[in-house]
Amino acid sequence: MSAADVVRVLKERGETVAAAESLTAGLVTAELTSVPGSSAVVRGGLVVYATDLKHTLAGVDATLLAEHGAVHPEVARQLAEGARERCGATWGLGLTGVAGPDPQDGVGPGTVHIGLSGPSGTSVRSLTLGGGRDEVRKSSTTAALNLLRDHLKIPVE
Amino acid sequence: MSAADVVRVLKERGETVAAAESLTAGLVTAELTSVPGSSAVVRGGLVVYATDLKHTLAGVDATLLAEHGAVHPEVARQLAEGARERCGATWGLGLTGVAGPDPQDGVGPGTVHIGLSGPSGTSVRSLTLGGGRDEVRKSSTTAALNLLRDHLKIPVE
Repeated sequence: MSAADVVRVLKERGETVAAAESLTAGLVTAELTSVPGSSAVVRGGLVVYATDLKHTLAGVDATLLAEHGAVHPEVARQLAEGARERCGATWGLGLTGVAGPDPQDGVGPGTVHIGLSGPSGTSVRSLTLGGGRDEVRKSSTTAALNLLRDHLKIPVE
Repeated sequence: MSAADVVRVLKERGETVAAAESLTAGLVTAELTSVPGSSAVVRGGLVVYATDLKHTLAGVDATLLAEHGAVHPEVARQLAEGARERCGATWGLGLTGVAGPDPQDGVGPGTVHIGLSGPSGTSVRSLTLGGGRDEVRKSSTTAALNLLRDHLKIPVE
């Protein structure tokens, strides 16, 4: 299972993880902490469902949110950096996107941006996911864990 | 479904909800936001898995945490109040407990405290839940939604 691999490798490396989540609203931290013993590596997270909380809780630039809306690669980048910094973790994940069924800020369902911030910097992966609301949220969670797996060089089974 | 009822009634009342979660680590906000249109009532949340984040993110008294550990009714109360205040919601839920398999801070698996803070004050419900790690986390999530249902006077089906 993807989360168990991530927890095991982080534990071996003595590293920790946190997440700032919009569309997944806690699914990433819930999935990571489904693994027994995950308290050694999971710091916590910020669920920033309302747009203003992306600024107040995670430190995303308010002008960026006002000008481009919440669903933007740069928002994912700043969410990842905010999660890492405010939760004091080695790695920070940031997720923003549209789960549907309705569009948000002029962006259609299935558009998702995932940021990963670590010791060497921050990168963003943008995806267009199919399926309904539940599927988009689950696929986004898996994609976030896969982004971290890639950076930790964990082979995909 | 429990979450759908809560979202519907909060929408009717023009009220909002947020959560500060330890053992459930995002399951409560994830469950609430599984409902389409929940963005009208779910503000967000704080996932405070590490003990120090209960203080820094949610404002739980550091002396309380040092003296009594993280699994205590008063911690649940302060988590609920922290969620309500820091996320700017009408209702704040706070969850702390031991999912297991190992005890934490000298408390056995299945011990869970859930706080609910609202316009008229804060109350705490303490539970002893059976089952393994997954079951304790799921039952805690359901219990938190039921606590809110009770205060919103939604009949249990």
